[in-house]
Amino acid sequence: MTLEIFPIGGIPEVRAGDDLAGLIAAACPDLRDLDVVVVTQKVVSKAEGAMVRIDAEDPRGHKAIVERESTRILRRRGDLIISETSHGFVCANAGVDLSNVDEGWAALLPEDSDRSARRIRDGLRARAGVEVAVIVSDTFGRPWRRGLTDIAIGCAGIRAIVDLRGTEDSRGRELQVTEVCVVDELAGAAELVMGKAAGIAAAVVRGVEPAWFGRGEVRAEVVRPPQEDLFR
Amino acid sequence: MTLEIFPIGGIPEVRAGDDLAGLIAAACPDLRDLDVVVVTQKVVSKAEGAMVRIDAEDPRGHKAIVERESTRILRRRGDLIISETSHGFVCANAGVDLSNVDEGWAALLPEDSDRSARRIRDGLRARAGVEVAVIVSDTFGRPWRRGLTDIAIGCAGIRAIVDLRGTEDSRGRELQVTEVCVVDELAGAAELVMGKAAGIAAAVVRGVEPAWFGRGEVRAEVVRPPQEDLFR
Repeated sequence: MTLEIFPIGGIPEVRAGDDLAGLIAAACPDLRDLDVVVVTQKVVSKAEGAMVRIDAEDPRGHKAIVERESTRILRRRGDLIISETSHGFVCANAGVDLSNVDEGWAALLPEDSDRSARRIRDGLRARAGVEVAVIVSDTFGRPWRRGLTDIAIGCAGIRAIVDLRGTEDSRGRELQVTEVCVVDELAGAAELVMGKAAGIAAAVVRGVEPAWFGRGEVRAEVVRPPQEDLFR
Repeated sequence: MTLEIFPIGGIPEVRAGDDLAGLIAAACPDLRDLDVVVVTQKVVSKAEGAMVRIDAEDPRGHKAIVERESTRILRRRGDLIISETSHGFVCANAGVDLSNVDEGWAALLPEDSDRSARRIRDGLRARAGVEVAVIVSDTFGRPWRRGLTDIAIGCAGIRAIVDLRGTEDSRGRELQVTEVCVVDELAGAAELVMGKAAGIAAAVVRGVEPAWFGRGEVRAEVVRPPQEDLFR
């Protein structure tokens, strides 16, 4: 089993209303069944028009948007706000992002990023005749580790978490807990070929275990409900 | 730029004192310069003899070891202990693991997993004449997301975090913060080809950006010092 991961180059600047699946299919004519297509949140938000103007003269402009996008503020330190979003994500600045967008604008998270993934998946089936999985990725921090990694904020056509509980390990003993969040590992793997500054908005992971394909959702499977949470 | 990720099969059962680099080099004769070799904590701990006996009759046996391996307990819920280890890692059960080990034994984390990575890297240079990077990986949970992912607990020959702060984004604006923890993304990517039950203890990531190779350490770069921590 060998995985291949490669960037999809040549996607033009995305604008509100653009057919993102069509742009991806045109930029990557070699898409195949059982590929996993990872698309960054930024272009999904742009295509969906999830952008707001910020007043460049108002130093609180960005912060006001972050507060509006937060359902709950967990921590503040200096300019940094860690908050919970309407999706249940806990992240910095409610996912509101100023990089790689036009001056005076901020990109919000897609309203429902699992639905965004399903739309792109349906679009790729219609445009390119392929049955792929789609992951919408974003860049999040972690409370106890420095540095950011890309994780999945939405998915379609792939199980978000693969449950290996109860499977025997190599010594025939039952594994204790091994629910692997494969969509997060796939999103992070795709980031390795994207590069922040290069304007690459999507990547393909080829060779993923066929048994992982199927119905999946980040919101229902991965977002930890507050009652399970030990650290909110 | 295409990444290739493949498992290293055929590493025999590892015992204390085994030459892990030698076993890896023998199992993967095609190793090349600038490959990233990801090795799971379990076999590193076994080779280093970081194993302790637990009393199978004592239901508190495992918990007592977890408490001994913890420098600080953060949360308890039922059988789960979230604690900080001597390395500064915050994880479940102090990283003490009962799966894929002999009955009556538990695997502890390596004493210094960056040093473990350096030793394997030095060993691969000596055995196979290659300049690779090495990552020691382990499986951790996340406070706000269900499911586990593999992350790096040690590395050698690769920068743990690649700092893209100050690099211009695709619109010529300075990026705000983009310090990517590439060793965690590489560890997670490698997990995708390993599979918990298959007894695969190592994988190769080939095609990684050459500029990322160099001095790196998980402990110094990735572990967030308590004074920066908003959630401990």
